[in-house]
Amino acid sequence: MKKIINNPENVVNEMLEGIVKAHPKYVRRIEGTDVLVRKTSPIKGKVALVSGGGSGHEPSHAGFVGKGMLNAAVSGEVFTSPTPDQVFEAIKAVDGGKGVLLIIKNYTGDIMNFEMAEEMAELEDIKVKHVVVNDDVAVEDSTYTSGRRGIAGTILVHKIAGAAAEEGMSLEDVQRIAQKVIKNVRSMGMSLSSCIVPAAGKSSFELEEDEMEVGLGIHGEPGTHREKIKKADEITKELLDKILEDIEIKKEDEVAILVNGLGATPLMELYIMNRHLHKLLNDKNIKIYNTIVGNFMTSLEMAGASITILKLDDELKQLLDSIADTPAFKNI
Amino acid sequence: MKKIINNPENVVNEMLEGIVKAHPKYVRRIEGTDVLVRKTSPIKGKVALVSGGGSGHEPSHAGFVGKGMLNAAVSGEVFTSPTPDQVFEAIKAVDGGKGVLLIIKNYTGDIMNFEMAEEMAELEDIKVKHVVVNDDVAVEDSTYTSGRRGIAGTILVHKIAGAAAEEGMSLEDVQRIAQKVIKNVRSMGMSLSSCIVPAAGKSSFELEEDEMEVGLGIHGEPGTHREKIKKADEITKELLDKILEDIEIKKEDEVAILVNGLGATPLMELYIMNRHLHKLLNDKNIKIYNTIVGNFMTSLEMAGASITILKLDDELKQLLDSIADTPAFKNI
Repeated sequence: MKKIINNPENVVNEMLEGIVKAHPKYVRRIEGTDVLVRKTSPIKGKVALVSGGGSGHEPSHAGFVGKGMLNAAVSGEVFTSPTPDQVFEAIKAVDGGKGVLLIIKNYTGDIMNFEMAEEMAELEDIKVKHVVVNDDVAVEDSTYTSGRRGIAGTILVHKIAGAAAEEGMSLEDVQRIAQKVIKNVRSMGMSLSSCIVPAAGKSSFELEEDEMEVGLGIHGEPGTHREKIKKADEITKELLDKILEDIEIKKEDEVAILVNGLGATPLMELYIMNRHLHKLLNDKNIKIYNTIVGNFMTSLEMAGASITILKLDDELKQLLDSIADTPAFKNI
Repeated sequence: MKKIINNPENVVNEMLEGIVKAHPKYVRRIEGTDVLVRKTSPIKGKVALVSGGGSGHEPSHAGFVGKGMLNAAVSGEVFTSPTPDQVFEAIKAVDGGKGVLLIIKNYTGDIMNFEMAEEMAELEDIKVKHVVVNDDVAVEDSTYTSGRRGIAGTILVHKIAGAAAEEGMSLEDVQRIAQKVIKNVRSMGMSLSSCIVPAAGKSSFELEEDEMEVGLGIHGEPGTHREKIKKADEITKELLDKILEDIEIKKEDEVAILVNGLGATPLMELYIMNRHLHKLLNDKNIKIYNTIVGNFMTSLEMAGASITILKLDDELKQLLDSIADTPAFKNI
């Protein structure tokens, strides 16, 4: 297993220690947990955002803890949902009296555990609401999901709902805005290679040397089909077409786009995809308001990429533009 | 060849188009060249910084064009020095009357071509100086170098010299500060796998399934030796020990550290290295003033990492702390 790790059982704990050492101005760890919270928590008078899920998607989710995005990130084992008690610890640590919004990606385990934590918090009179991100248009139902999966579009939910919370909006309003982003965001990905979960020690699946998998999930769940590798422009079109089958985006509509790498794909290739994505949207007279390119929702060392399209309105544009200051996403 | 590209001959051009589409607030391209400059260029009354080199190291170098870092980045073909005329175009586009500093990594081709551009600029009465970054302690002389190679430490030269230029310092002062960073910075890397140069279509070298190469260069040049993969903590110690053989860092000295990924190594592994690097320096009573973790000087989809240590003084600390706003490095 070609990894720079110590004991596979300790990767999450050691990673979290390394994150806190790297970003002490942003985050601290709640002792005895795998929860990272903003260094100054709780923040009185503002809604707090809690996200999380299995590890192995770095910089998601701990990399987005900071001003204008998350108040806490809860890390499960690699590709494994965090337990309810850990999510509950996060909620207690960040609630500043105005309530807590949980941002959950649509995986069965995550939903069950985050909802249990929500119930535990309500018993202690903490106001909690949640939203479920399900941006992946690839498949309905999958290995770990009922309905569409949540993938890279989650970053835009963090950014925009985080901005709403930063502005001092009520829990109901922050939830409404997060729901609006979820309603308007779609993603579609593909992969060129698998990854190795440290505790498993071997590849999650195998692809032939000339093969790619379209619609693959961020834990290696099957996608829609396998096919021969195509050119970057063809791949980009295939992903975009699938998205546009699922959501109506009309001429003159404004969108934000995110070209996200899964871990091992060079930035060079993401930029080459971005180039053609701009051309395709431009040809359709869809206006690109904002472009984000990079590794935000990864799958360890998997090679591949996803495209995310978010349909914007004035409210979402203003919140997307506002300041964010986190280890992995900064908007000055 | 598992890559998301179109024609291998067009990767640099298409990547640059994709970068400009992604970051229009930061950069524009000088027509007919592979030079990206700050959107507002030239800036009157400030020294301008020009860096560059072969492509394939993204986000180096175009990702660092912006406030507080570079004024221009010149991209050669993959792992190939840019030509003198391209560097000359960059110099002309960014000179704001106060002179231009070229930041060159120590590779024979880069030095030759950047120095020729410097001579071309001087014939047109543009004040130009240069510095040569040679932070890699792995080997003296290599496939493409006489003396030590320039690798990830270059990022810290960009940051600190860029801050000096932003403050309005003279060309001589900005050069002096860049030289001070170069004198005080050392790096050492290792690799778990090779990468594929698009035009070559096959791996630059092969490593056995249980092997790593220590001291490997960012173009796949040989390092000091190959050995069995060790645990992350052992690798981290081996890299740090080699650095500390080369530069004297005493108790109570303050340093900045950079744990840099080569492209395909998950952030998880970089943070695990960072954790132990903090412990090792802490055990030696060396004070860590600043930590940077991420993919900054990559080698396409190579798996591996490097450690960089920069010895600081008050002047360097203040410049390291100042604001930077570029696509790939932001300091708020």
